[in-house]
Amino acid sequence: MSAIQDFYPDEIAHCYGCGRLNDHGLHLRTSWDGDETVTRYTPQAWHIAIPGYVNGGLLASLLDCHGTGTAAAAAYRAEDREPGTLPAHRFVTASLRVEYLKPTPLGIELEVRGRATSIEGRKVTVEARILAAGQVTVKGEILAVEMPERMRPKAGP
Amino acid sequence: MSAIQDFYPDEIAHCYGCGRLNDHGLHLRTSWDGDETVTRYTPQAWHIAIPGYVNGGLLASLLDCHGTGTAAAAAYRAEDREPGTLPAHRFVTASLRVEYLKPTPLGIELEVRGRATSIEGRKVTVEARILAAGQVTVKGEILAVEMPERMRPKAGP
Repeated sequence: MSAIQDFYPDEIAHCYGCGRLNDHGLHLRTSWDGDETVTRYTPQAWHIAIPGYVNGGLLASLLDCHGTGTAAAAAYRAEDREPGTLPAHRFVTASLRVEYLKPTPLGIELEVRGRATSIEGRKVTVEARILAAGQVTVKGEILAVEMPERMRPKAGP
Repeated sequence: MSAIQDFYPDEIAHCYGCGRLNDHGLHLRTSWDGDETVTRYTPQAWHIAIPGYVNGGLLASLLDCHGTGTAAAAAYRAEDREPGTLPAHRFVTASLRVEYLKPTPLGIELEVRGRATSIEGRKVTVEARILAAGQVTVKGEILAVEMPERMRPKAGP
């Protein structure tokens, strides 16, 4: 299934969390599932907090990139446009709130689910949760803003 | 200079962010500087968000481990005990709030500074900020709680 990150322009597709062009990255991919978005990721053995559980910073990373990806996907949908059409949407994170409800087990695939709850001009709010074996272990809220033009690198030659 | 993470018992010193026993980790180290704590880290080239800037998930990781480290350091100090004396303090993150005030430049050493603003029983609140070349680029608040006994693995044989 295609993911919103497949459509990020090459010059801004290096994100450590979700950039397809980052050789050392997590390669997170965010897709629609009805009115929700979903990102699936299996943490590596070294993404440990204490034995048996996933590191909180890695979980924050999942929410961060799921949030900006969801914001982009929702922005296209709100404009009744397909990803890949121009101009490209690309969001960055303005704020992130993470609640660790219970320890997240290490060694299984995690599911990050969420939805855009408001779209106001260049700002999109995303509510998200992380599930492990169907149980919600983490909840979060991401405020994403369209990347300022001054941050956008020139496309390659 | 010694860091609070130097005193985490071996069986809980594997954290991806700050565990000295994690071969793939960031090896964050948190020390006192007067009434504040400080963690210094230079992100790797692959910790990119978009060209020139640090990934938001990595920045959240810095706050996360700086927060739990500061909580442990503050808990010892509140009891007028030295780290390394027993019982060992080890905190986990209950919630994390991150405000990305401006893009954080990639390629230089970052400084995470903070302080414990309240200690109530097993809960410690930490306010922290990330500085790049002396400029605050990120602010955060971490609620850390003493690790529940049921999460603590048995010490090795």
